[in-house]
Amino acid sequence: MEEGEKMGTIRVPKIVPSPGNDCKKIEEAFRGWRTDTKEIIRILGCRNSSQRKKIREIYQHLYNKPLTDTLKSKLPHDYLVFSDFKKAVIMWTMDPSERDAKLANKSLRKKKGVDHLQVIIEIACASTPEHLIAVRQAYCSLYNCSLEEDITSNVSLPLRKLLLCLVSSYRYNREVVDANLAHSEATVLQEAIEKKKLYHDEVVLILSTRNKHQLKATFECYRQNYGNSIYQDIESSGTGNSEYILRLAILCIDTPEKHFVEVVRKSVVGLGTDEDSLTRAIVTRAEVDMMKIRAEYFNIYKSSLDNAVIGDTSGDYKDFLVTLLGGKI
Amino acid sequence: MEEGEKMGTIRVPKIVPSPGNDCKKIEEAFRGWRTDTKEIIRILGCRNSSQRKKIREIYQHLYNKPLTDTLKSKLPHDYLVFSDFKKAVIMWTMDPSERDAKLANKSLRKKKGVDHLQVIIEIACASTPEHLIAVRQAYCSLYNCSLEEDITSNVSLPLRKLLLCLVSSYRYNREVVDANLAHSEATVLQEAIEKKKLYHDEVVLILSTRNKHQLKATFECYRQNYGNSIYQDIESSGTGNSEYILRLAILCIDTPEKHFVEVVRKSVVGLGTDEDSLTRAIVTRAEVDMMKIRAEYFNIYKSSLDNAVIGDTSGDYKDFLVTLLGGKI
Repeated sequence: MEEGEKMGTIRVPKIVPSPGNDCKKIEEAFRGWRTDTKEIIRILGCRNSSQRKKIREIYQHLYNKPLTDTLKSKLPHDYLVFSDFKKAVIMWTMDPSERDAKLANKSLRKKKGVDHLQVIIEIACASTPEHLIAVRQAYCSLYNCSLEEDITSNVSLPLRKLLLCLVSSYRYNREVVDANLAHSEATVLQEAIEKKKLYHDEVVLILSTRNKHQLKATFECYRQNYGNSIYQDIESSGTGNSEYILRLAILCIDTPEKHFVEVVRKSVVGLGTDEDSLTRAIVTRAEVDMMKIRAEYFNIYKSSLDNAVIGDTSGDYKDFLVTLLGGKI
Repeated sequence: MEEGEKMGTIRVPKIVPSPGNDCKKIEEAFRGWRTDTKEIIRILGCRNSSQRKKIREIYQHLYNKPLTDTLKSKLPHDYLVFSDFKKAVIMWTMDPSERDAKLANKSLRKKKGVDHLQVIIEIACASTPEHLIAVRQAYCSLYNCSLEEDITSNVSLPLRKLLLCLVSSYRYNREVVDANLAHSEATVLQEAIEKKKLYHDEVVLILSTRNKHQLKATFECYRQNYGNSIYQDIESSGTGNSEYILRLAILCIDTPEKHFVEVVRKSVVGLGTDEDSLTRAIVTRAEVDMMKIRAEYFNIYKSSLDNAVIGDTSGDYKDFLVTLLGGKI
């Protein structure tokens, strides 16, 4: 998570209290008649994933119960369901690979359409190779079968094949680009899109084995050689679901920040807010590339992502998201 | 490597000398006019992979050079080429994931036929999921590209697809078997073999995503439902190379010990010995399942694997292999 250290928005205090101290303060916050939610936000919202890991471990050791169990029982409910605040804090407190394994599993249990599979594309294409492997390991531990097996039983062909290859990828992670290869593979992609064979074996192979720098060069080559961007050509191929998923995979590989700008934007525009998507975008990217997402948001909409979030949320939920975005509450 | 602790043949002394002590003795063994090869064998041949790892680290620290470099320069040459002894000791001393990444790379650089791809099938199908991931990581570190990319450029379709899916697998690793699934997937396999479509997408999917216990149940179901074993049906499909590789993949998933019995047997029968294969089989399995391989060898040939190795090798090479097999020298 080297990139995350520079591109995340969370604000870890210069002098970080010991995990033991954090645990005691968290436990105290739950003691009163009303949980001191602000204190929970101030502590957990300002610790990075390795600090949260230590807090989870020490909490288990000190109080002999998992921290997430306490959060589940003690953070305020919204009538009978988990409030958005509660869901966000729990998601943020979990181990990131376990969190993503759970998100993937939840998305696979939805049967209609393909939009919900967006989460799996995000995990497969907008993560480091190491994180993706960790998610697959966590999935096996949690669900008694592999992520690949659940994709196989829940997603039909030809999308199944693309998803399977993307989640099984372990890309080379340094900047090595072969210009000739970019050129020839741009041609392969263009021909497949022209023939409306978006999930052709060769397309799947290119997207699931090449390193991301190589792929960015390939997409750039595509634009230069064929006038349109690969996104434009996919969109005008009129292939419906395939079109949506392939475009998404390429976007998450090429410029994940642009994808997450779309997720945040869609969650906040219009009447009501899609809190689950908003939470997912901010919780999963706050210590990865939220700086880039914020810059890109401003770039596209000439307005602030932070203000959009503030304008569309309220209470503890708003305060927690603002904290993850690096703001003061 | 839980299984390895019970099923390996190497003999680690009850009181293991400290890694620092081992390093000093190794360095002394190289000091004299002639390297004391027996001492090298006695030390390195009787340490498990985590002990060898510590020895490599401490050696680097004490003498400011990698242990494998010393082995390369100081162990006796065989005229101008590396002797079999030297190759075996170096292979044994390397980190197992690095060793397998190197074996995979070497096999991909051979262009003719498909026999050499056997090594990749072994790594993909006869390893734990964790080891396979570690090999992919080591491959990226060593070769500036992923194992998958090198398979893509060096192996042609349809074999490429099978290999890619097998090396990308991360199987669930506990004993969970669904009898209905075994039944229905045995049918899928049988139909594909009957139609001579050995690398059909469904076949590849089953072999690369199901856990090994499930697959064993599927192969057993196959035998019960169709009279022949899946091996017999593949062999009589008359599909040449495809037949060879598919049978191998299934064998390495189902009963890797039987595959390695074949490797050892082929290396020692007839005139001359295929030392590279013999070394690979013994070095890669000595702390994994060599006990099982030995038992299976006796079962099939009514003679001892150890005696076969002793009868076909000599000198330090023989002594080293015998040591890995748990014998005294």
